[in-house]
Amino acid sequence: MIIAAIEAGGTKFVLGIYRADCLGDKAPELLARSTVPTTSPEETLSLSAGFFEAEAEKHGKAEALGIGSFGPVELQISSPEWGWITATPKPGWRNTDIAGWFRRRLALPVAFDTDVNAAACGEHLWGRARGVDNFVYITVGTGIGGGLFCGGNLVHGLAHPELGHILSKRFPDDSFEGICPYHGDCLEGLASGPAIANRWGIKAEDLPEGHPAWDLEARILARAFATYALVASPELIILGGGVGLRPGLAEKVSLLVGKELAGYIPAMTRPGRLEGFVARPSLGGEAGLAGSAALALRLCTE
Amino acid sequence: MIIAAIEAGGTKFVLGIYRADCLGDKAPELLARSTVPTTSPEETLSLSAGFFEAEAEKHGKAEALGIGSFGPVELQISSPEWGWITATPKPGWRNTDIAGWFRRRLALPVAFDTDVNAAACGEHLWGRARGVDNFVYITVGTGIGGGLFCGGNLVHGLAHPELGHILSKRFPDDSFEGICPYHGDCLEGLASGPAIANRWGIKAEDLPEGHPAWDLEARILARAFATYALVASPELIILGGGVGLRPGLAEKVSLLVGKELAGYIPAMTRPGRLEGFVARPSLGGEAGLAGSAALALRLCTE
Repeated sequence: MIIAAIEAGGTKFVLGIYRADCLGDKAPELLARSTVPTTSPEETLSLSAGFFEAEAEKHGKAEALGIGSFGPVELQISSPEWGWITATPKPGWRNTDIAGWFRRRLALPVAFDTDVNAAACGEHLWGRARGVDNFVYITVGTGIGGGLFCGGNLVHGLAHPELGHILSKRFPDDSFEGICPYHGDCLEGLASGPAIANRWGIKAEDLPEGHPAWDLEARILARAFATYALVASPELIILGGGVGLRPGLAEKVSLLVGKELAGYIPAMTRPGRLEGFVARPSLGGEAGLAGSAALALRLCTE
Repeated sequence: MIIAAIEAGGTKFVLGIYRADCLGDKAPELLARSTVPTTSPEETLSLSAGFFEAEAEKHGKAEALGIGSFGPVELQISSPEWGWITATPKPGWRNTDIAGWFRRRLALPVAFDTDVNAAACGEHLWGRARGVDNFVYITVGTGIGGGLFCGGNLVHGLAHPELGHILSKRFPDDSFEGICPYHGDCLEGLASGPAIANRWGIKAEDLPEGHPAWDLEARILARAFATYALVASPELIILGGGVGLRPGLAEKVSLLVGKELAGYIPAMTRPGRLEGFVARPSLGGEAGLAGSAALALRLCTE
């Protein structure tokens, strides 16, 4: 089965053509890949469609297209704005119909979700969360965002989770005011890459091992992850993103989540239970694109 | 269809026999009801079983028994302790097999869950959350606990949600240290009935309308509910319990949730959208017992 996928980012659109097992058991094979810079919607969408049309000549027409997009996006199927990028500050992109545009141009069924929900789907189908029906996928980088699976399905609800914007209790040794333009010291305002750079005056990637920044980062993330555990009871938290992939960080946060829970959830605080509770994604750099393919595959097989 | 139900509380077991529509469309009819004090497990369980045996003579044998229990409880089906009350401080009740005991004694299939999950099930099947597939049910009283529905199903995951124990950012005008023995100033430590009494020196039920306690209570709850919205994206939060049912509180919290989100979730912050976002339960005083019946009915029809 041929599947088309787009990881629609604020700086570039990553495009892929996959050959996928229709049962989804095996990781899909990437047949072709390209990128298009995110300039104006007209240009970026047209160039992207051109890639898929050219590839269809070689591999046959795709069965479906999956799009994991930067946001905010409208996901409510009943809304006339379903498949749109809505209130983005990105010039020219506000209220842009993405999913509908590709559906009409390529005459394909289109699955559309947030970039992090797509990545979560990919990890569930082919990666670290295979067989795990309740988990969080979170990316800590330029921003903090995540997807939630409950009972084997992506959670949408009223809109979609916005895991990066919760307001946790502050640590007494931390008086940084935070940089989120909406909430100040929410998780993203305190622990994203730009927050780290702002707080310490050094970029996260340049902060050495052993710098107090990493201890504080781990504590802030652990407190937020404890909140996710208390609200949604995940079995696993997958931590990705430029900051999240820092070697050793997932392991450190795993241990600290137990400290935050202070023995309250017996199933979580049994000896050894939190080992691996926070883990790195297994799809690596192509998680977003493969995840978009996973969205499309779910659409075909549902 | 005849259904047996137990609301297993720390001070009493409420017992009920219902006649229920097997499709679950109509609210069930309560045929008989009794209560048994929670003394020793031997006595309380035996007296409860006796009630069901006597009622079976009159109405015929029940098809299933649903139990909504005080906790902590073990809900993992694969665990040998499934259906037990585990690490409770209640004398004599630690590691007590409840579900298995009734299954053997009454020779019935038994559905077992937390008291709040049972109440959430009842509200989903017959109450306020009918047709709402993503919602939170939360009770604010002696403690704070809740259940989470995502995609039409109760969320269990690793254990079950413990909504009352999240640590939110403190309000600057509030320096109360909190009373939770595990976490100090978690939600339960700051906003449960005993926390209110401890903070103001007056019992919650005696605090008059207009007392600053209610403004602070609403803000604390709204911040926690905003966290639930950001993590699990519910369409509705049902607020019950002795404190939660205070007239006007749900409406006040609804409005404040929008303030906490600060415009971040467009689907939630559209004008009017948060009206009724936090609402009172509709099953009233029998929510716990009816919810336990709902658990049993789900078991029969799944």
